[in-house]
Amino acid sequence: MSFAFDITHQASDSHARLGVLTTPHGTIDTPNFIFCGTKASIKGLTPTQMRDCQTDIILSNTYHLMIQPGPDLIEKMGGLHKFMGWDGPMLTDSGGFQIFSLGHGSVADEIKGRGLQKRNKSVLKITEEGAEFRSYLDGRKIFLTPEKSIDIQRKLGADLIVQLDECTPFHVDKDYTARSMAMSMRWGDRSLAEWKRKDDGKQVMYGIVQGGIYPDLRKECCEWLQNSGFFGTAVGGSLGGHKEQMYEVVSYCTPHLPEGRPVHLLGIGGFRDIFEGVKLGMDTFDCVSPTRLARHGWALKKGVEKERINVRNARFKEESGPVDESCACPCCQSYSLSYLNHLFRAGEMLGMQLLSLHNVFTMNRLMRELRTALANDTLKPLEKEWCVS
Amino acid sequence: MSFAFDITHQASDSHARLGVLTTPHGTIDTPNFIFCGTKASIKGLTPTQMRDCQTDIILSNTYHLMIQPGPDLIEKMGGLHKFMGWDGPMLTDSGGFQIFSLGHGSVADEIKGRGLQKRNKSVLKITEEGAEFRSYLDGRKIFLTPEKSIDIQRKLGADLIVQLDECTPFHVDKDYTARSMAMSMRWGDRSLAEWKRKDDGKQVMYGIVQGGIYPDLRKECCEWLQNSGFFGTAVGGSLGGHKEQMYEVVSYCTPHLPEGRPVHLLGIGGFRDIFEGVKLGMDTFDCVSPTRLARHGWALKKGVEKERINVRNARFKEESGPVDESCACPCCQSYSLSYLNHLFRAGEMLGMQLLSLHNVFTMNRLMRELRTALANDTLKPLEKEWCVS
Repeated sequence: MSFAFDITHQASDSHARLGVLTTPHGTIDTPNFIFCGTKASIKGLTPTQMRDCQTDIILSNTYHLMIQPGPDLIEKMGGLHKFMGWDGPMLTDSGGFQIFSLGHGSVADEIKGRGLQKRNKSVLKITEEGAEFRSYLDGRKIFLTPEKSIDIQRKLGADLIVQLDECTPFHVDKDYTARSMAMSMRWGDRSLAEWKRKDDGKQVMYGIVQGGIYPDLRKECCEWLQNSGFFGTAVGGSLGGHKEQMYEVVSYCTPHLPEGRPVHLLGIGGFRDIFEGVKLGMDTFDCVSPTRLARHGWALKKGVEKERINVRNARFKEESGPVDESCACPCCQSYSLSYLNHLFRAGEMLGMQLLSLHNVFTMNRLMRELRTALANDTLKPLEKEWCVS
Repeated sequence: MSFAFDITHQASDSHARLGVLTTPHGTIDTPNFIFCGTKASIKGLTPTQMRDCQTDIILSNTYHLMIQPGPDLIEKMGGLHKFMGWDGPMLTDSGGFQIFSLGHGSVADEIKGRGLQKRNKSVLKITEEGAEFRSYLDGRKIFLTPEKSIDIQRKLGADLIVQLDECTPFHVDKDYTARSMAMSMRWGDRSLAEWKRKDDGKQVMYGIVQGGIYPDLRKECCEWLQNSGFFGTAVGGSLGGHKEQMYEVVSYCTPHLPEGRPVHLLGIGGFRDIFEGVKLGMDTFDCVSPTRLARHGWALKKGVEKERINVRNARFKEESGPVDESCACPCCQSYSLSYLNHLFRAGEMLGMQLLSLHNVFTMNRLMRELRTALANDTLKPLEKEWCVS
């Protein structure tokens, strides 16, 4: 069997669970973290280095790749796996999220509810048929439909693909959220139909739970997914205005999630968020944060406030110890905070690379420790070790 | 013996030779190439990756490190080897070259004779005592003397260190060149005296041949070196206005170089330049070009015009083959020109990293093939393979 998801252990006091996700490019244990290789590249790390950091699975973004270098080119080059030299499991998203967020730096914030911004101006038109938007590269108009998204994702060739949806912002009212969700559900049906039309056993699809911050809408969307033929479920859309609300919104979905399917929580990557998500039945997570933070000098760190430290900080100038004494990553094994501080102050790109190694390794370490704790029923003490605030 | 240089083979038809250079951090075969890790970092590559690319030896620049993070900090952190995680042989220069070139983008060009620029304004004063210049970082005045350069290099702790010299520009007349060379010789004596004062067996010093484009001055400088106690010889200063003149200037030195000492040709890294240099008795070379070219999309390539191709070129957009079919580097083994073209067009830093891997590997491959050819007396056909123009 090319694809499978087996739940191997269920926690007694939460919805947390251990699972095994099988794809044609390998099998991964869940809970797990999916690293973002937006433009067919993990920023700053080679696939070999990703493996050295014990990475199991990555994703790429359909929105970026459809514009540059284009799905036809990637197909011609043998697909995304071969093109970018990653032979493990891979996911592509539908392009939806970026259509509604790119060209507007903080729409990701908006969807997460951190502010009330105007609608992204690069989106020209959203109709039942699909979404028209301007290319970030040359301004040309592009029309993306559910069918086109699936066709593009087929050409890219990732193992796990995702239906097209409209990413409902936070500031819209319930009526808009409900109408948008209904359309995303119809887009989901169309995505699935298009996938089935050409299904060759090499890809499976995730449907998306929309419904904003409204429990009844989230439930309705989950019920639609339950009756659909998606392989997996992705929890998306507005997850509220702050962390507590995010956990609450995810908890609206938990009891209604289609049974036996892997569940992905879209765009979330904080330590505490992951512990909370796991307890709410989430199996996989993704976020650009590990490598993005690294490029800005932030090292993820177990058990410190804000879950990270900035190596540019003057107090690290003469610190001969590593970022994290307890970390076995290639960065912590060989380099001092003093050296990292120097690299960032001197503008040396190696600093970004070394911190990327550390941050990716740390996320994988978190997921590994989390899986072990889940098996041993020690999730609570582990959460206390990782999250102090 | 911590340090040694043994010539193991001498070509019959040129001054080319094979040697073995021993340092406390390992032994390298010569001819060899020294990669520039200017600010205690090879731009874009970890030391592990440098080793994967079969690198034997690297250098760092005293000028940059004395300003940031400072020699005292590096000494406190256990020296440059430990600080930057490189456990192989290492060289530091004296700071002289950069004093006379930095803050003035093209003084390297000028020293190589490519134009007539004004004297670098960040140099405030050159006296018998030393050189005063402004920090590139904060504009503060710094006074560097031969003694200070050696003291800094001792704190940095590289295996091979270099005397302070004045880097004579190309456009000055013979009188200026002669006076400058005489001062550099006195600075060399002072550098050597300072080194001897604290010699602990962990470092050895190279003296520098100045003398511009004047055969009699080059000869005079070599004779001074012959009578000095330097471990090695570095050929520096103005090497003329074009490649042919550069080879000619080096040839003025060749017959007079101190016997039995390793000879380094400063700042030269083209394929053809290296073949010509080897034939003129040069044992090691250095240049920023392998990684700098990589950051601008240039891949070094055996047997093509200009010794390189630019992966951004439109003709590579759909090229499924690697940069060089004959190359065993991690880049050519896994990635197509099409992918590299995409990475550079998309502004992904991984492109710079992958080409840096290729370019470093290619330089090491060149040196390896060159050593084999030298042993087998097949240098001429090898040069034809590598250099078409």
